[in-house]
Amino acid sequence: MKAIAVTPGAGVPEIVERPVPEPSAGEALVRICRVGVDGTDYEVIEGSHGGVPEGEEQLILGHEAVGIVEDANGTDLEEGQYVVPTVRRLPAGVERNEYFDNGEPDMAPEGEYVERGIVGAHGFMAEYVTSPADCLVPISADLAPLGFLVEPISITEKALEHARATRSAFDWEAESAIVLGNGSLGLLTVAMFTETLEYDRVYCLGRRDRPDPSIDIIERLGATYIDSRETPVPEIPTAYEEMDVVYEATGYAKHAFESIEALAPNGVAALLGVPEDWEFDVDGGRLHRELVLHNKALVGSVNSNRRHFERAIDKLSALPEWALEDLVSGVYGLEAFDRAFPEATASVAAGGHGSATPADDDTTIKTAVEFEGI
Amino acid sequence: MKAIAVTPGAGVPEIVERPVPEPSAGEALVRICRVGVDGTDYEVIEGSHGGVPEGEEQLILGHEAVGIVEDANGTDLEEGQYVVPTVRRLPAGVERNEYFDNGEPDMAPEGEYVERGIVGAHGFMAEYVTSPADCLVPISADLAPLGFLVEPISITEKALEHARATRSAFDWEAESAIVLGNGSLGLLTVAMFTETLEYDRVYCLGRRDRPDPSIDIIERLGATYIDSRETPVPEIPTAYEEMDVVYEATGYAKHAFESIEALAPNGVAALLGVPEDWEFDVDGGRLHRELVLHNKALVGSVNSNRRHFERAIDKLSALPEWALEDLVSGVYGLEAFDRAFPEATASVAAGGHGSATPADDDTTIKTAVEFEGI
Repeated sequence: MKAIAVTPGAGVPEIVERPVPEPSAGEALVRICRVGVDGTDYEVIEGSHGGVPEGEEQLILGHEAVGIVEDANGTDLEEGQYVVPTVRRLPAGVERNEYFDNGEPDMAPEGEYVERGIVGAHGFMAEYVTSPADCLVPISADLAPLGFLVEPISITEKALEHARATRSAFDWEAESAIVLGNGSLGLLTVAMFTETLEYDRVYCLGRRDRPDPSIDIIERLGATYIDSRETPVPEIPTAYEEMDVVYEATGYAKHAFESIEALAPNGVAALLGVPEDWEFDVDGGRLHRELVLHNKALVGSVNSNRRHFERAIDKLSALPEWALEDLVSGVYGLEAFDRAFPEATASVAAGGHGSATPADDDTTIKTAVEFEGI
Repeated sequence: MKAIAVTPGAGVPEIVERPVPEPSAGEALVRICRVGVDGTDYEVIEGSHGGVPEGEEQLILGHEAVGIVEDANGTDLEEGQYVVPTVRRLPAGVERNEYFDNGEPDMAPEGEYVERGIVGAHGFMAEYVTSPADCLVPISADLAPLGFLVEPISITEKALEHARATRSAFDWEAESAIVLGNGSLGLLTVAMFTETLEYDRVYCLGRRDRPDPSIDIIERLGATYIDSRETPVPEIPTAYEEMDVVYEATGYAKHAFESIEALAPNGVAALLGVPEDWEFDVDGGRLHRELVLHNKALVGSVNSNRRHFERAIDKLSALPEWALEDLVSGVYGLEAFDRAFPEATASVAAGGHGSATPADDDTTIKTAVEFEGI
């Protein structure tokens, strides 16, 4: 079968031939339909995040997938059922640990998990994959074409669940919320904020010039676009308002600290970016004092579990079709799979390394590779 | 009547004469027994935190009090009942706001509260005070002699409630906990950690040489003393272990950021210090990444509400007598009240400003002023 693999750090992904995998007991065989591409894939491609399975040189990419059960293999799944796979698995040779036992692999510390398509385990960009049946979340046929958006939505589900938990010891109602970052995760989150949550006012920070399709989506959703080149994060309270919720999806480390200044009293910032080391100056005294005197919270969040996937499927069905259509700028078959990775391709053409920052071309927002039509 | 007041920034507190206050409708008149002294008092004395009531030049000090109801004034309180007053009140001229309506004045933002003895309202270091009856929490006669410890314990009750809330979205059990700071609040918290919570291993960070009474208390409680001069906070995981809970009670801003490195995966740091502005370098990329990839949380916490005071009274009764006796290094009558403020006195003797750091003398831990014997 065909799969899309990469030697991390070595340039662009390529199509490789692999044997069709055989499901073990408790596993099903899934025929993959579509797999989304996101910033983490670019980090894996350039070698700054993640890693190949032990003893191998290449990693099959892909962690945002939707497929169809080809062989239920005696599990409770039904053949022909569309499913979305979760991402974390037990490391090879490990039979169980408390996090997986609890249904919370997203809370497992390093070393106690692998992530398919990211670190230590092959991903879903292949014609067939196998997976434990309890890591395959059923999705209806009408939602299946956009099923590759379930994983990123589940990431936001988890982050918001944890953010809300930080504020659960007192009476709190969030009215204003900002998403830092207008990449595909940021835009999906803006849509969740405006369409499925009760925030009165939603903002999204980016640094792109108009006309821009991401700004169009933000504004059609009823949110306010803030250009970070005109209004740096610490100035947002003066220029707009203090934010009850900050959702950081840029990976830009200064934003983690500047969030404290953008927050309203009793507010919470959810951090999702994974920056590299970077030393810089902060007014640590002021930030510390702000956190304390205004009861503010910061919460980091990574990955998501089956519960978040299930809720993400509900959310997907509640998002407006036009927004999802505008968000997904391209779904490409295997013959044109490289168009799903425009940043990697552009980077190689320019002789440089890839970059996890959003593509600079005007039209790409979210891409996917199609292995099998839906 | 006699009261202890200060002109913020002008040196030491002094005894002043004031008329006995008269309770308004809904208020009771309380005869004050004892009032504790803490780091915030020194910040008020030196003028770095808090402020006098509008139009006045002096502030009556004291926010950690225990007294006895002298005149119930038609409220539900009983005369002769010992009570502990909470600290926040509505600003002058304000009849209500949502935070006070909800019983959560501790969550009110700046401008929506005053704090007795700290900012905008006179404190409890006076022979008599008046207070709305619902801000007076009954305490039994046997606990009354140490009732001035209820307010600091309530501060920790709130901080831990909020810290636990941040971890309530998943299955979490804290085994290791560290208190940063061996001042009186730090030591009370160590005692709460070892005596009333289920942490397996408790640590306390300080920077005092042995022999030292605070180290004696820490070790007799079964906790481990860590000298920050030998083991800086970021090195604690290597030298000892990663911490599920960090409780910062130093006001040293670098600790807020270093806490992220001391935390175990899924851990939470509660921040309580109120530092002044201070710019310094951080590896913001690494700290941001740590927060995200290990699902860590930081939560600031200030003040406490009646619910925390009520729980604090239960906690006070559960703490070992020897620890409380050792902690309270001196209770001084009005004729020797200056001995309750050794740092302010030492500072004036040295010709300098006061300091919010722990006293350097070997024996002072927690002091109180006694207005009326119990």
